[in-house]
Amino acid sequence: MRYEELTIEGRNAVLEAFRSGKPIDKLFVLDGCKDGPVQTIVREARKHDTIVNFVAKERLDQMSETGKHQGVIAFGAAYEYAEVEDMLKLAEKKGEPPFLFLLDGIEDPHNLGAIIRTANLAGAHGVIIPKHRAAGLTATVARTSAGALNYTPVAKVTNLGNTIEDLKKRGMWFVCADMGGEVMYRLNLKGPIGLVIGNEGNGVGKLVREKCDMIASIPMKGDIDSLNASVAAGVLAYEIVRQRWM
Amino acid sequence: MRYEELTIEGRNAVLEAFRSGKPIDKLFVLDGCKDGPVQTIVREARKHDTIVNFVAKERLDQMSETGKHQGVIAFGAAYEYAEVEDMLKLAEKKGEPPFLFLLDGIEDPHNLGAIIRTANLAGAHGVIIPKHRAAGLTATVARTSAGALNYTPVAKVTNLGNTIEDLKKRGMWFVCADMGGEVMYRLNLKGPIGLVIGNEGNGVGKLVREKCDMIASIPMKGDIDSLNASVAAGVLAYEIVRQRWM
Repeated sequence: MRYEELTIEGRNAVLEAFRSGKPIDKLFVLDGCKDGPVQTIVREARKHDTIVNFVAKERLDQMSETGKHQGVIAFGAAYEYAEVEDMLKLAEKKGEPPFLFLLDGIEDPHNLGAIIRTANLAGAHGVIIPKHRAAGLTATVARTSAGALNYTPVAKVTNLGNTIEDLKKRGMWFVCADMGGEVMYRLNLKGPIGLVIGNEGNGVGKLVREKCDMIASIPMKGDIDSLNASVAAGVLAYEIVRQRWM
Repeated sequence: MRYEELTIEGRNAVLEAFRSGKPIDKLFVLDGCKDGPVQTIVREARKHDTIVNFVAKERLDQMSETGKHQGVIAFGAAYEYAEVEDMLKLAEKKGEPPFLFLLDGIEDPHNLGAIIRTANLAGAHGVIIPKHRAAGLTATVARTSAGALNYTPVAKVTNLGNTIEDLKKRGMWFVCADMGGEVMYRLNLKGPIGLVIGNEGNGVGKLVREKCDMIASIPMKGDIDSLNASVAAGVLAYEIVRQRWM
């Protein structure tokens, strides 16, 4: 997997990057600059929830690699995504039953990074994310993954439900985390398994949940609704680790 | 527990808030304003790692409650911390052996919030944090805790080691998360227990670790060093839940 920071400089390049859907992690704009094109870029950034920093010209000059920033510098990230097939091969090479994470729309890059980190340490062979309505592999994700992105393959698929169907035909079982399921300690989570983690706000989507073989619930003793998504993923992943390795 | 957002407006009030060590979550400053006092406030904010947003006058006017913001508005949070004694009483009232979290210097407010959320759902009776070198209960922590701060008491103590000593005399056992310990599944984590979680970068401090009765390690199957602190706390807390309730 390639992990390469991208610095995009100049008005046209930055605007083009936003419009082509390239994941931009941070935008630096000349403080006080009210030019039309710069305002357009700031509007695009807001639309994409990119963090905008207004800084002095000296700072931009310092950051610039080309010396031609025209008041705007954007930082993005480029990665090569892996294929699901690579993950199955990795499991086979290690002589282990496949253990995959499937994330049904994790939106917060910090959560995505922390989950990739957990997947690596729990001994999973890969992380599958959907193409749409989900955080991609930005620099924030790379940083939060604490290096795990260099080891744990991440694949992007068009339809998570179809991927589950395909993998079921190849002998995998799927467990999703949701309320109202069986307490996770009582489920058999050994063998070739896919752990499906839902979106931060809405949990696992109905269509994806229906394709899962088991619904696991984490016991909740408290007053509030749910764990943080990356914590829930960690708790479930380690129940799988306990059952697989102990 | 009281949870109240504070809006602090005007140059003297904001500067005073920073200098008195009040936790300021966000600072809004008039875009392009180069006055000396405003620059001093921005410097103080940077020193305290407060997020600074440069915004237009209209935005400040809109946010202002007094109409006298002088170009600066800060948002802080004020809480009443609980006492450790309250947590023991809570456990007694519920007829449960005490289960406490002790955080040895968690610095990231997102981690602190997520851990308080986990503590609530794992059925812990409280979270103890040190006075120094640790995130306090800012608005970010409250938000990340997803409401758990309203239910789970948080106490601030001067010396975590002394608190552990005191609680040991009252029959509690302490387990800390660290590498090189016994795999958590093999430890007996039932009974009145304190779970000690270390700092994001350095783990549990030497003096605190020496006071613990057990060192628990999370099995690591991967290539990188460690889990995110809030994920590690969740994984360990739920091993305690499994042993206590199952």
